Amino acid sequence: MPNTGAQTAPRIAVDVMGGDFGPQVVVPAAVEAARDGIAVVLVGDSARIESELSGLNTAGLDITVVPASQVVEMDDKPSDALRRKKDSSIQVACRCVTEGRADGVVSAGNSGATVACGMFVLGRIKGVMRPALAGIMPTEKNPVVLIDVGANVDSKPLHLLQFGLMADVLSRCVLGVSNPAVGLLSIGEEEGKGNATVRDAFELMRQSDLRFIGNVEGRDIFTGDVDVVVCDGFVGNVALKLSEGLAKSMSNILKKQLRSSWLSRLGTLLSIRAFRRFKKVVDYAEYGGAPLLGLKGLVVVCHGKSNELAIVNAIRMAATSVRNKMHEHLAEGLAAHSGLAGKTEKASKDAA
Amino acid sequence: MPNTGAQTAPRIAVDVMGGDFGPQVVVPAAVEAARDGIAVVLVGDSARIESELSGLNTAGLDITVVPASQVVEMDDKPSDALRRKKDSSIQVACRCVTEGRADGVVSAGNSGATVACGMFVLGRIKGVMRPALAGIMPTEKNPVVLIDVGANVDSKPLHLLQFGLMADVLSRCVLGVSNPAVGLLSIGEEEGKGNATVRDAFELMRQSDLRFIGNVEGRDIFTGDVDVVVCDGFVGNVALKLSEGLAKSMSNILKKQLRSSWLSRLGTLLSIRAFRRFKKVVDYAEYGGAPLLGLKGLVVVCHGKSNELAIVNAIRMAATSVRNKMHEHLAEGLAAHSGLAGKTEKASKDAA
Repeated sequence: MPNTGAQTAPRIAVDVMGGDFGPQVVVPAAVEAARDGIAVVLVGDSARIESELSGLNTAGLDITVVPASQVVEMDDKPSDALRRKKDSSIQVACRCVTEGRADGVVSAGNSGATVACGMFVLGRIKGVMRPALAGIMPTEKNPVVLIDVGANVDSKPLHLLQFGLMADVLSRCVLGVSNPAVGLLSIGEEEGKGNATVRDAFELMRQSDLRFIGNVEGRDIFTGDVDVVVCDGFVGNVALKLSEGLAKSMSNILKKQLRSSWLSRLGTLLSIRAFRRFKKVVDYAEYGGAPLLGLKGLVVVCHGKSNELAIVNAIRMAATSVRNKMHEHLAEGLAAHSGLAGKTEKASKDAA
Repeated sequence: MPNTGAQTAPRIAVDVMGGDFGPQVVVPAAVEAARDGIAVVLVGDSARIESELSGLNTAGLDITVVPASQVVEMDDKPSDALRRKKDSSIQVACRCVTEGRADGVVSAGNSGATVACGMFVLGRIKGVMRPALAGIMPTEKNPVVLIDVGANVDSKPLHLLQFGLMADVLSRCVLGVSNPAVGLLSIGEEEGKGNATVRDAFELMRQSDLRFIGNVEGRDIFTGDVDVVVCDGFVGNVALKLSEGLAKSMSNILKKQLRSSWLSRLGTLLSIRAFRRFKKVVDYAEYGGAPLLGLKGLVVVCHGKSNELAIVNAIRMAATSVRNKMHEHLAEGLAAHSGLAGKTEKASKDAA
């Protein structure tokens, strides 16, 4: 077993070669996280890593370097990354977990390859049918977990139930929500609204121990009144990327208008602190990345454009999940519902 | 045939009883539209309509009142609205089209009931498999058409192709785009990304006469680089409502921050004109409503919360579609692709 338990520091393997900015952003981020008492394992080109480290104060920090000779490029196919790049930084980082040298992995590299390596190298927790990516997004109140944001398409009702069970545990263990409200993403609030899969998933979730609040709609995601929103990975990926795109486009339009006269430019100058706070509230970097749930070891998938803050926060999130024994709770939560899964197996197969 | 042709004014039946604000907003909106040379047919409670009209200057305007004794409530089921409320304002408005008294319908009432009445009363254009709702949304450049935003769930590949063909005509005839770029909403740009339905639809769209630019992602919707985005109604409805919710939540968060100090409140005051222009750019009311495409007569479904501007613009959009003979072009576009539909019928059935 990897080091879990409160007595030792969580140990996180960081894919140094991943992300648009590579080692020069990832290494300083990992060092910053190490200052929080997290043990970091830097995986990638040793020479590049040592060069980045030489400029930083690392005295007294628990930092290990594990060499990896290959790099998965952003346009590599996940299957190629798996088969042809067995010594890639992301694949070696995942092996650090299976070899007991780390408890979790953080990567800002090729998302598809990261998901594929995580699934193939780490393997699933017993009882998990489909690992899922949990997107964490800012709202008017607490952050919301949207699951799945792209690890699976054409999900079955039972998969959706498991996504909800896993995100419930994430919400408790990592975001500190005591009794998460779980909603099912649909196109109307009433039971019976939605497509065939959602209608069957509704019944499964109603029978579960989740605090299931029923269907929620697209407009409910950002109000902060629901803690977990469950959907198929196609819908969730569209929703996540749409949110990112819309937030950016709205900011662009607002900036353009605010720059259009000297009066409004002056006004913006006076409001600059408010705009900065606004940016902080809606900034994805505050949440670091999307945890891939259901594997034997947490993998946090970061945005390719992740800045240092995003990487630091992703490492912190992985460490928190280790400290709070998220994986043990995940296994317990799924096991507690295995009866429900069994009972509804037929219904789920019929719907398949 | 209803009055089409350039020689007579487009004649639009307006469901006066629909929407959260009812006759006191819808009647003034219809009168405003009539001032643009549109003939409006006001359908609903005659006494209420006459009372609203009495306070307005309607001299020289082409306004007709058609009585309807029932009202579809916002929580009525579409099937009940159809069967039990045959004299409802929305159903009577649709009958105005089949009876040749109007060319199109505008309603801000119960969306599900409006779609159901439109389909049942007006019937489909020959060759249309599934009528679809086209959402028109602001972007950084020109507005984008997202289709379908909720009339259908579990769409088949051939349905998606037809959605694209219909929205292409809408984009040309109503939004004035000369050669619309049509994208297929998926979770990766490369061919082969997405779920089973999307992968098959990709091939159909590639073979069509559309200016098909391939897969687009959620983040591409609001850049303004694509004119039509095609998706299943479940995904589109989530996307539409999410956009609405996110835009509102972002505004709320920004407002809260801007009000948090006297300095930023002063700044906001100086920038007030820029904020107003921003609001206008991102305001759904500028686009009026979502046209339901594929029926023998256009039905424009407005948001329940529609203000006067939204209703006026919806009526103008319906009139523009009549003036530009959108329905004839729709029928032609679909007929031109019936061979493609036939050729690919097997593929579509296999995917079903």
